[in-house]
Amino acid sequence: MSAKLDRLKEIDAQLTKFSTISELLYWDMRTIMPDGGFDAHSDAMDYIETESFRLSTSDELYKLLQDLSEPGEWDQLDDMWKFNVKTMREEQERRRRIPEEVFRRAVAISTASERAWEEAKEASDFSIFAPHLEKQIEITKEIKSYTHPDMEIYDSLLDDYEKGMDSATVDRIFSELRDGLIPLVHEILAAKQPDDSKFNRKYDIEAEKKVQKLLLTYIGFDWSRGTTAESEHPFTLDLVPTDVRVTNHFREDNAIDPMFSAIHEGGHAIFEQNVDPRYGATPAGGCDYLGIHESQSRFLENILGRNINFWKPIYADVQKLQPEFADVSLEEFAAEINHVRASMIRTAADEVTYCLHVILRYEVEKAIFREGVPVSELPALWNRKMEEYLGIVPANDAEGILQDMHWSDGSFGYFPTYLLGSIYDGMFLEAMEADLGPIDPILAEGRIGEIRAWLTDKIHRHGNTRRPKEVLAAVCGREATAEPLLRYFRKKYSEYYHL
Amino acid sequence: MSAKLDRLKEIDAQLTKFSTISELLYWDMRTIMPDGGFDAHSDAMDYIETESFRLSTSDELYKLLQDLSEPGEWDQLDDMWKFNVKTMREEQERRRRIPEEVFRRAVAISTASERAWEEAKEASDFSIFAPHLEKQIEITKEIKSYTHPDMEIYDSLLDDYEKGMDSATVDRIFSELRDGLIPLVHEILAAKQPDDSKFNRKYDIEAEKKVQKLLLTYIGFDWSRGTTAESEHPFTLDLVPTDVRVTNHFREDNAIDPMFSAIHEGGHAIFEQNVDPRYGATPAGGCDYLGIHESQSRFLENILGRNINFWKPIYADVQKLQPEFADVSLEEFAAEINHVRASMIRTAADEVTYCLHVILRYEVEKAIFREGVPVSELPALWNRKMEEYLGIVPANDAEGILQDMHWSDGSFGYFPTYLLGSIYDGMFLEAMEADLGPIDPILAEGRIGEIRAWLTDKIHRHGNTRRPKEVLAAVCGREATAEPLLRYFRKKYSEYYHL
Repeated sequence: MSAKLDRLKEIDAQLTKFSTISELLYWDMRTIMPDGGFDAHSDAMDYIETESFRLSTSDELYKLLQDLSEPGEWDQLDDMWKFNVKTMREEQERRRRIPEEVFRRAVAISTASERAWEEAKEASDFSIFAPHLEKQIEITKEIKSYTHPDMEIYDSLLDDYEKGMDSATVDRIFSELRDGLIPLVHEILAAKQPDDSKFNRKYDIEAEKKVQKLLLTYIGFDWSRGTTAESEHPFTLDLVPTDVRVTNHFREDNAIDPMFSAIHEGGHAIFEQNVDPRYGATPAGGCDYLGIHESQSRFLENILGRNINFWKPIYADVQKLQPEFADVSLEEFAAEINHVRASMIRTAADEVTYCLHVILRYEVEKAIFREGVPVSELPALWNRKMEEYLGIVPANDAEGILQDMHWSDGSFGYFPTYLLGSIYDGMFLEAMEADLGPIDPILAEGRIGEIRAWLTDKIHRHGNTRRPKEVLAAVCGREATAEPLLRYFRKKYSEYYHL
Repeated sequence: MSAKLDRLKEIDAQLTKFSTISELLYWDMRTIMPDGGFDAHSDAMDYIETESFRLSTSDELYKLLQDLSEPGEWDQLDDMWKFNVKTMREEQERRRRIPEEVFRRAVAISTASERAWEEAKEASDFSIFAPHLEKQIEITKEIKSYTHPDMEIYDSLLDDYEKGMDSATVDRIFSELRDGLIPLVHEILAAKQPDDSKFNRKYDIEAEKKVQKLLLTYIGFDWSRGTTAESEHPFTLDLVPTDVRVTNHFREDNAIDPMFSAIHEGGHAIFEQNVDPRYGATPAGGCDYLGIHESQSRFLENILGRNINFWKPIYADVQKLQPEFADVSLEEFAAEINHVRASMIRTAADEVTYCLHVILRYEVEKAIFREGVPVSELPALWNRKMEEYLGIVPANDAEGILQDMHWSDGSFGYFPTYLLGSIYDGMFLEAMEADLGPIDPILAEGRIGEIRAWLTDKIHRHGNTRRPKEVLAAVCGREATAEPLLRYFRKKYSEYYHL
């Protein structure tokens, strides 16, 4: 065994300690930390992130990764360590090009910007956030001039969240989807809507928690390697692959959202839990490709969870745990979870209109970074597109351009991954049914474990070692296309809405 | 402002970051961490504790503390920093004398010993734990030979948990208490017992949580600087003084224990929350004297919480939140929370027999460290004393000598602080009533805030800056004595049991 590889493993283990701590600080801040804990958590986080930045950009690691890339050493590495060395090297070369002053300035801008966004959203006043958004855009450009000097900036932003994805591909598949979807949505909205009066009631939150437990267990969440908590917005976080956590937000006015949040976050968690355990917490473990990650959460949430057959084996149990559903037939429940509405808020949207919410954000981001549209014009642009795609106009900034926090912390290029996930899902569903046959009877017979096994074999277990386009090639044997998703939508909603 | 003091403040802030992280890791492990998270948490903890040990024993800090103790620098320090420099220096001088090899060996022995204790308790077999206990005793002696070479070993153990307390004083007051208490307990146990049949029912855990919230709020827990969670054993933990957390263990078979755990841990938390905020997270902030700390949790739990008047303003609300108490009158409830029973388990004991459980442990610890009684003879010693003090004999090791985990991690000298707390409480109650008048009407009229204000003024706000004996001198103007506690017990239980 190479002494250099041993040293790399030590450094990797140290980086894992840093990330365990910083993830735990984040988890605590978002779940139960009282207000008074903010400063101490932030101080501890700064310290850990600085130490982690230093080690991950250190000269020692730089030299080590170079040495391990030399033929004599390289040839002795197994596939996983080849992947790890290559990935760490690419990542490090980018990070090392960011001057520490710029890195620190970016952190400070994000902190101020996140607070300004909260304030602006509260006041529903974009002008409070606008100057911070401008700074956030500028510092993003500045950082990209160091990390990706040779790449078009918006492509490099996409690449941050979905390695190897490019805007030419995204443009192509998003246009394909948008052009097919807008007429479908208009048809659906013009059709007779299901009666949702039974769902307008007060729900017991403790019952919602029990249903979450049932759902997570049913879809295969491993409780010995995961846990749950509550937070304002649901999220999934892995401290390490053997400690993967999901949160939910339970509400008295809505018991269905928390169910689908549970299945969605559970889909993320199951992915992390099912990566090949040999990869551990090394760069190969887990999945950093957010489109691929989202494909798994959305496959569970939408392709499986919004299929009436998913509920057949468990709906009676749900009714027992949550008696508010006792007078709701399975068919009524299925109609409601597939109820398409033109609505303002992305996170509350149904699976069909959701796509248009994301396309809108993608187009706004391109307007910012490609067309140089000034920040002051963005709310109007947003509202015009809402009208065009969904026929509705936000009454204020809070339900319009201020609704998401992603731009406040500089996560430009993140939104498209949500929709990439759904587009991949259409493709995965076709590949899966080619292998296993139609999923309807599999779900109806409670054989969801067979579906999970397929996803694990084809996708989960590979973790980071296959990049998004490689996943599509390996699983579907073709390039990204929105056609299967469109077909899935047309078929399913033609039935529900008798189109 | 001295540059040296500035540097000390930086180091102190760094030590606070380490402690925030290590407390958070501990908190997470004891509350929601899944089994799979154990290794990563342990690795991160090892890293942080090692860094903290290094910094706190560093030559730089040593030199800095020496320099700041020189007249020119010392005279410029305010009282708080004088306290901090003096305390850090004493602490550091002790820690620096422990060879790193010994420190690491002690950590390894504790880890193995804690696991062996769990296994032994599970199997109810002391012989599994015995060899580990022997090692724990030996390493404790070895460490003490470095840290406290000039102090009698058991005195130095007491000093670890209750600075300045000595076994001569403890012997005196514990004997006083034991000699007064054994006949009282025998009288009580021979008297007519209250009817507890109404409490033998199944309780709703969600209701217990709501009652905890009510109780914590009522006694003055500040939710903006604190939070709650569940754990196997209730505990209080402060990440920093502005983030103080309590846990509870809710049970279907008993709703009263969780109420008193909430009040007890809340008493600890309120202490931490009410230390002078100027002290922040420096050594002056918080309270490391466990007897004094316990005096506050027990004052809330017993002196206030087991007084029928405490419940008068809130009992109707408790009944509303927890309908299982709807048919329990306040008088019946009061009789049950003051029900004295001879029982095996310390943590489940009433406030009177609890004292004898602690005295027993104190005597066993002295037998170990003073009289050199071999480990193999300890279970028999334990059982003899149980029979002598409470007239009952454990049926097995699990409900006898293995019931507490304290010795497994080497916390010898910790047990006596529980009883010191109660003994101080008798003294504090007399001092308080001399200032405020009888507490019964204050409680009955819901003016508990006046009691808390008194405790804060006399005790909480001073944090660590007054050592236990100084607290007694300042608040009570006298040395430690068990007489007031005995008087309180005699008066209260003569009434309840018509003695």
